[in-house]
Amino acid sequence: MTKWVYAFGDGKADGDASMRNLLGGKGANLAEMSSIGLPVPPGFTVTTEVCTYFYANGHKYPSDLKAQVDAAVEHMGKIMGAKLGDPKNPLLVSVRSGARVSMPGMMDTVLNLGLNPETVEGVIKLTNNPRFAWDSYRRFVQMYSNVVLGLEHHDFEEIIEAAKEAKGVELDTELDADDLKALTVKFKALVQKKLGKPFPDTVEDQLWGGIGAVFSSWMCQRAQTYRRLNKIPGDWGTAVNVQAMVFGNRGETSATGVAFTRDPATGENYLYGEYLINAQGEDVVAGIRTPQPITKLVRERQGGKLPSMQEAMPKMYDELFAIGQKLEHHFKEVQDVEFTIQEGKLWMLQCRAGKRTAKAALKIAVDLVNEGLINKETAVQRVDPSALDQLLHPTLDPKAPKTKYTTGLAASPGAAIGEAVFTADEAEKLANDGHDVILVRVETSPEDIHGMHAAKGIVTARGGMTSHAAVVARGMGRPCVAGCGNLRVDYDKKQMTVGDKVIKQGEVITIDGSAGVVYVGRVSMQNPELTGDFNTLMEWADSIRKLKVYTNADTPTDAKTARSFGAQGIGLCRTEHMFFEGDRIVSVRQMILAETVEEREKALAHLLPMQRGDFEEIFRVMDGLPVIIRLLDPPLHEFLPHKDVEYEAVAKQAGISIEKLKAKSATLHEFNPMLGHRGIRLGVTYPEITAMQARAVIEAAVNVENEGIKVDAEIMIPIVAWKQELDLAADIIKKVAEDVKKEKGKLPNFKIGTMIELPRAALQAGKLAETAQFFSFGTNDLTQTTCGISRDDAGPFLTDYQVKGLLMRDPFVSIDRDGVGELMAIAAERGKKTRPEIEIGICGEHGGDPNSIELCAQIGLNYVSCSPFRVPVARLAAAQAALKKFERDV
Amino acid sequence: MTKWVYAFGDGKADGDASMRNLLGGKGANLAEMSSIGLPVPPGFTVTTEVCTYFYANGHKYPSDLKAQVDAAVEHMGKIMGAKLGDPKNPLLVSVRSGARVSMPGMMDTVLNLGLNPETVEGVIKLTNNPRFAWDSYRRFVQMYSNVVLGLEHHDFEEIIEAAKEAKGVELDTELDADDLKALTVKFKALVQKKLGKPFPDTVEDQLWGGIGAVFSSWMCQRAQTYRRLNKIPGDWGTAVNVQAMVFGNRGETSATGVAFTRDPATGENYLYGEYLINAQGEDVVAGIRTPQPITKLVRERQGGKLPSMQEAMPKMYDELFAIGQKLEHHFKEVQDVEFTIQEGKLWMLQCRAGKRTAKAALKIAVDLVNEGLINKETAVQRVDPSALDQLLHPTLDPKAPKTKYTTGLAASPGAAIGEAVFTADEAEKLANDGHDVILVRVETSPEDIHGMHAAKGIVTARGGMTSHAAVVARGMGRPCVAGCGNLRVDYDKKQMTVGDKVIKQGEVITIDGSAGVVYVGRVSMQNPELTGDFNTLMEWADSIRKLKVYTNADTPTDAKTARSFGAQGIGLCRTEHMFFEGDRIVSVRQMILAETVEEREKALAHLLPMQRGDFEEIFRVMDGLPVIIRLLDPPLHEFLPHKDVEYEAVAKQAGISIEKLKAKSATLHEFNPMLGHRGIRLGVTYPEITAMQARAVIEAAVNVENEGIKVDAEIMIPIVAWKQELDLAADIIKKVAEDVKKEKGKLPNFKIGTMIELPRAALQAGKLAETAQFFSFGTNDLTQTTCGISRDDAGPFLTDYQVKGLLMRDPFVSIDRDGVGELMAIAAERGKKTRPEIEIGICGEHGGDPNSIELCAQIGLNYVSCSPFRVPVARLAAAQAALKKFERDV
Repeated sequence: MTKWVYAFGDGKADGDASMRNLLGGKGANLAEMSSIGLPVPPGFTVTTEVCTYFYANGHKYPSDLKAQVDAAVEHMGKIMGAKLGDPKNPLLVSVRSGARVSMPGMMDTVLNLGLNPETVEGVIKLTNNPRFAWDSYRRFVQMYSNVVLGLEHHDFEEIIEAAKEAKGVELDTELDADDLKALTVKFKALVQKKLGKPFPDTVEDQLWGGIGAVFSSWMCQRAQTYRRLNKIPGDWGTAVNVQAMVFGNRGETSATGVAFTRDPATGENYLYGEYLINAQGEDVVAGIRTPQPITKLVRERQGGKLPSMQEAMPKMYDELFAIGQKLEHHFKEVQDVEFTIQEGKLWMLQCRAGKRTAKAALKIAVDLVNEGLINKETAVQRVDPSALDQLLHPTLDPKAPKTKYTTGLAASPGAAIGEAVFTADEAEKLANDGHDVILVRVETSPEDIHGMHAAKGIVTARGGMTSHAAVVARGMGRPCVAGCGNLRVDYDKKQMTVGDKVIKQGEVITIDGSAGVVYVGRVSMQNPELTGDFNTLMEWADSIRKLKVYTNADTPTDAKTARSFGAQGIGLCRTEHMFFEGDRIVSVRQMILAETVEEREKALAHLLPMQRGDFEEIFRVMDGLPVIIRLLDPPLHEFLPHKDVEYEAVAKQAGISIEKLKAKSATLHEFNPMLGHRGIRLGVTYPEITAMQARAVIEAAVNVENEGIKVDAEIMIPIVAWKQELDLAADIIKKVAEDVKKEKGKLPNFKIGTMIELPRAALQAGKLAETAQFFSFGTNDLTQTTCGISRDDAGPFLTDYQVKGLLMRDPFVSIDRDGVGELMAIAAERGKKTRPEIEIGICGEHGGDPNSIELCAQIGLNYVSCSPFRVPVARLAAAQAALKKFERDV
Repeated sequence: MTKWVYAFGDGKADGDASMRNLLGGKGANLAEMSSIGLPVPPGFTVTTEVCTYFYANGHKYPSDLKAQVDAAVEHMGKIMGAKLGDPKNPLLVSVRSGARVSMPGMMDTVLNLGLNPETVEGVIKLTNNPRFAWDSYRRFVQMYSNVVLGLEHHDFEEIIEAAKEAKGVELDTELDADDLKALTVKFKALVQKKLGKPFPDTVEDQLWGGIGAVFSSWMCQRAQTYRRLNKIPGDWGTAVNVQAMVFGNRGETSATGVAFTRDPATGENYLYGEYLINAQGEDVVAGIRTPQPITKLVRERQGGKLPSMQEAMPKMYDELFAIGQKLEHHFKEVQDVEFTIQEGKLWMLQCRAGKRTAKAALKIAVDLVNEGLINKETAVQRVDPSALDQLLHPTLDPKAPKTKYTTGLAASPGAAIGEAVFTADEAEKLANDGHDVILVRVETSPEDIHGMHAAKGIVTARGGMTSHAAVVARGMGRPCVAGCGNLRVDYDKKQMTVGDKVIKQGEVITIDGSAGVVYVGRVSMQNPELTGDFNTLMEWADSIRKLKVYTNADTPTDAKTARSFGAQGIGLCRTEHMFFEGDRIVSVRQMILAETVEEREKALAHLLPMQRGDFEEIFRVMDGLPVIIRLLDPPLHEFLPHKDVEYEAVAKQAGISIEKLKAKSATLHEFNPMLGHRGIRLGVTYPEITAMQARAVIEAAVNVENEGIKVDAEIMIPIVAWKQELDLAADIIKKVAEDVKKEKGKLPNFKIGTMIELPRAALQAGKLAETAQFFSFGTNDLTQTTCGISRDDAGPFLTDYQVKGLLMRDPFVSIDRDGVGELMAIAAERGKKTRPEIEIGICGEHGGDPNSIELCAQIGLNYVSCSPFRVPVARLAAAQAALKKFERDV
């Protein structure tokens, strides 16, 4: 005989916390609490297997279910000394759903089930409280009609409002027993009218109606959508929990409340929560009465006048505290509990792991280790890496008043306040004059770098999570809200508009890059505070993780920041960002506009010492750690002016006519620059560019080694699709190295590797590894090409995908495992087959995303590289990945 | 003992034609000719294995090679009754390279080897012809110094020129024996001066010098480049052929010539070739004397005065004719032979399969079957499918005078003459007035379709083989030269410029789309002539091939053309091309500019009957054959105006303000439209577009079926990356089908399938096949995404790749097998695993490329789809693929 029903209560239970799949989260924890002797109102759980059976058999129950439920109900009654439907001594129960994971959209709760015209009289006699009895009854009819019978909540509220109006009162509490009785009658009449059949008075019908409603809600539209979005299998099913009612509204010795065993905001170790005397859970939610703190300390801190539970009900408090301690020791985790005190007796209604802020998570994880409750491995798994962003950046004061202006993507975390400016030049100018500015652009380009640097934060109207603005802002640690779809920027008028709300240059705005919101005016901020706990947890993470964590850094400043956050190398040093600094752009443009190899080499010769100097500085900062330098990546037109007004100045600088400049610009124009003349393709056409860059790297390495500093220089070739391209670049670099050796008498250690950022490169990894000493996955471009989506254009339509539930995650935020992930796995496997010692890493924006880092660990990469401010996130995520057992292949 | 040397001559041979790998092409055929009793001057072949040994052993020969060569030389001498180096009766030999396949860049030929100051005297005595002897000697020194010793050819020519000047003559033939003797001495002095050592007089040194030079030339730069470009393995090696010299310049009974056993231009069955009495092969090349036809018939046709070989040397002609017959019967193929007649004796120097025009290939293949020499399968393999283009389109008269204007890509075959015009509107206007016009554009867009249709041919300055102009031109059968890099088009001045050569509107140009050339003025043309042979061969091909051949056709006209060429269905019907016809674009724009779903549906309702009508016509033409209709593919901004001047008209048409139109246009702008909001992504955002198109297809199918015509309608979803997208589209289509069934009481048979044009779709094919009933590889986009190359931007840099030998084939012309091909194989395998009966085809431009068709056969596709004019090419290529045994996997 299959056991369909698991009872709990009276210090015993058929199930336990490990049976979450069978009993659901709530049922398993109720069983566990009961079996460790906590005061849990008795009850039973109908298993998820019944749900599965229900759907597999045309909405029928197993034939032996009824007998098991009847037995469990009787058992409950015995413990409570009452009986379901007994007019003299009626048992009242709650019915709740309970899936493996908490799931919005499903039936929640029916309370007070078991009341009917006969039992309500029994309750009146037992409690000597007609108002309590009728209030319970009308609440039951209202809830049951709504969640089980499917009637509209507001239809019942209207009846209540009408009753109050008729009586001339304002509050529900002003209605007396007779009023509530009359309401109950009216409610039942409404049901008869709407459904054409009466409200069920038989308690057995009520109970099976409740159970059926829970199972039916498993397949309702909202629940299905939620499951699709969260990849929860439909065959998991839900359990049903039936539990004896206890009442916190039975007088001044009754109460109800919720509590965390530690402060979920700070992690401090005291009972944190709220309670209300003589109330039911609903009343706390309704907000008519203000709940009071549980702990005296908290009341005092908040300056509250009304007594805390610790003060008002010290015995109950002590009992609750002891239970909290017991639960924490039992579950080895902070608990979030619900409780009810009925006439001086404490009942525990629910427990679960408590949600907490990043700061609290950090403190709790470290404290629990220090208290000997958990080990370091467990502590490392207890902190959500993504939440660390909260600790590393300023945040808006959650309590501060705010006026939202527009929303966009949370492109780079942190908050910033400043005057809106609309050009990079003005941003720089105002910043130099001591103003805090926020740079607002339709989109940014490499020409805006100086303005982005000068600004406190960046806002764009276009672009996605890996748009230029987003990538650069994250790299610089500037907050950024990108792709605000309804924002219109008018450069001529120096203003921006959302709807009809205009903000002109100089007006102050506040941006929250962690939430993707722009606010009007100044919103007060909280600065980040990094505690010792942070470093402790990071050390533990470092001792566990196998993936190394590198950083994407283009400047010595970035490199220093990243090292302070624990970066073990530079996984991506983008040389083209250096091309915009100071007046280098003049030489860059001369190089582009050159008509002959000789002219081009002349311009390159100007750039050589500057690039060499950049690399020298970075090598010094990194002091022997790997520095992976990517050769020129973007198409050349990115370095030419885009606007008419700029042509004249640039033509003059470059010493050519405006017509010629425009003609060249037109020739270089591309329809799809992402798939254009860039990366090594430039090296094929202009090998002298590759040669100059290789020379800058190798000479810099020699020079810095001559200072006695170790150098680990690695030259990376971008946009490789064919082995022939890589070979061509490698030949150029080796030739340069030979020349440098002749000139300097010394050759530094250096490696040559390739980006894997095109599907063809992934498939050809076996051949590429014949030449490449390392691979770095450029997952931005690999995602663009594998999925055929331009990251700069995807914003508008990917939003539709998420709204319609087609995509759970933005593939530019978290690696698309089935597509991009498979190509990465293929490439890693083929690369290692050819060259077992090959170093493989990732330098796309995904390198800082915990979910993607897990994938990287799974397919055996050696390192991840991310922007400096993401390094701690990556260190923690890498440790978690190392602790995870991968059950299935990619 | 390894056999390194294979002798031939005197009706015997050690080798035969099957030993091409060991003896090279030339050596194997010489052996074969000898062993079937043809008069071949005796000689021997040093095998390719010696070449391999040579490079594997530090440029040393096998120790037993010398003995084998000595024996072979002696054997040769015996047959010829002469001896190498014998002053009285010297044997003279030629030394030639001979790889498996003919390979430019390698050492070609040394003639007359064996001459030195002593043997030259012997020749004088034997021939009684001092001039012949000294001319042979100076030619030998000159050739040997150049090809074996590596001196410059022109150094020797200068000495000859000086001698002629000193003597006051103009022609080499005016130099007498003494002059030639003096030249020989000067040549040898030059060698001494340049190399610091004397010219070898020892015949053995000469022979080994020649052999060594052949082997060394195998690794010269040009040969290596050629091998890399043609994927010829370096370890194949070359053979060396040493053969006794015979002389066609020994008087009036001597002659030399070349002949084809059938006319290589027409395929007619007579000896076709040229000969010269008393001459050596060099003289034919030098062009001082005009060679005469071999056959009387040809002489008469050409109106020649001098006698043909058939008339002048009837006995020799008969002998040559008989040998030709024997060779054709032996090799079962037309032969291209070289022969020499020495004092009345005919010698065969070489035979190989004869190159021929497409027309000749067709006639010869059919004739050889009719003559019983070959079977149909062989005949089908004898015609190059790509060459059929010559037969289907007009071509330029090869003899006509031409002035080249510019070159570009041979984007669509055929030739055309017309006045240059620079806008589609003017093209249409002038064409309506009876002018022949060539439309010249920087690039074309869908808005130019009417002008392209009106034009005789199309020229663009930008874009590759799969640019809009190229694709549309091929579809329409219009010749097109695309991407003329140095062409500047000035729309304002209505003119184009190359360098400083201006062509204004109205000036006549001629274009050759098969060669990718634009000519100034009018060049005379030849019209295509399709013979019965064409249909015969096509029928044979159809009986052999397994791949079906569909066509890409958007209009009933295209569909009719394709059916006349044998198309078995429509593999790609692009609905968006229909959007530009007539005033439909107005409704399309209203749809795009709609602000609400209702407005959009209103505009779509206008389009519905038009699209339905289009489909009805196409279904009627295809009469039950499959018609695969692709839903809207391009991003919406392609339908909006691009130029300021157009905004006003369009805004007026659409009934909105210019500002709003511009704002909408700006909102829709994309950085990389190829990876943008297109294909099913539009259907996700605007499901009503998908619904309208589905309704047009399904209603059309019902209507045409009601006329008693069969319909096989297949709806194809473009740009699918996720199964969820396909499911969403399928749900919309099925919903529409249910509605149509309710309204019309009938549901036609229709299928739903997907394009596989993104790497992710290829990898996810197993899942996609759960929904898709057919797959169609969109290899244009799959190539763009797999290789990360925009086809519209690739022109300039892919040219660099080909020039530098990095890429053998343009991946947009011939499928990249290692990248795109692997993804196709993965997709086909995974798709079939899920749904074994799934129909898989290809509808990218590659569907008409023989090399790509071979791949399609190899991975087991069901059909290829190509533009109408490529259908015959595809039919033949498919038959050849079916006959090919695939030795290796993709």
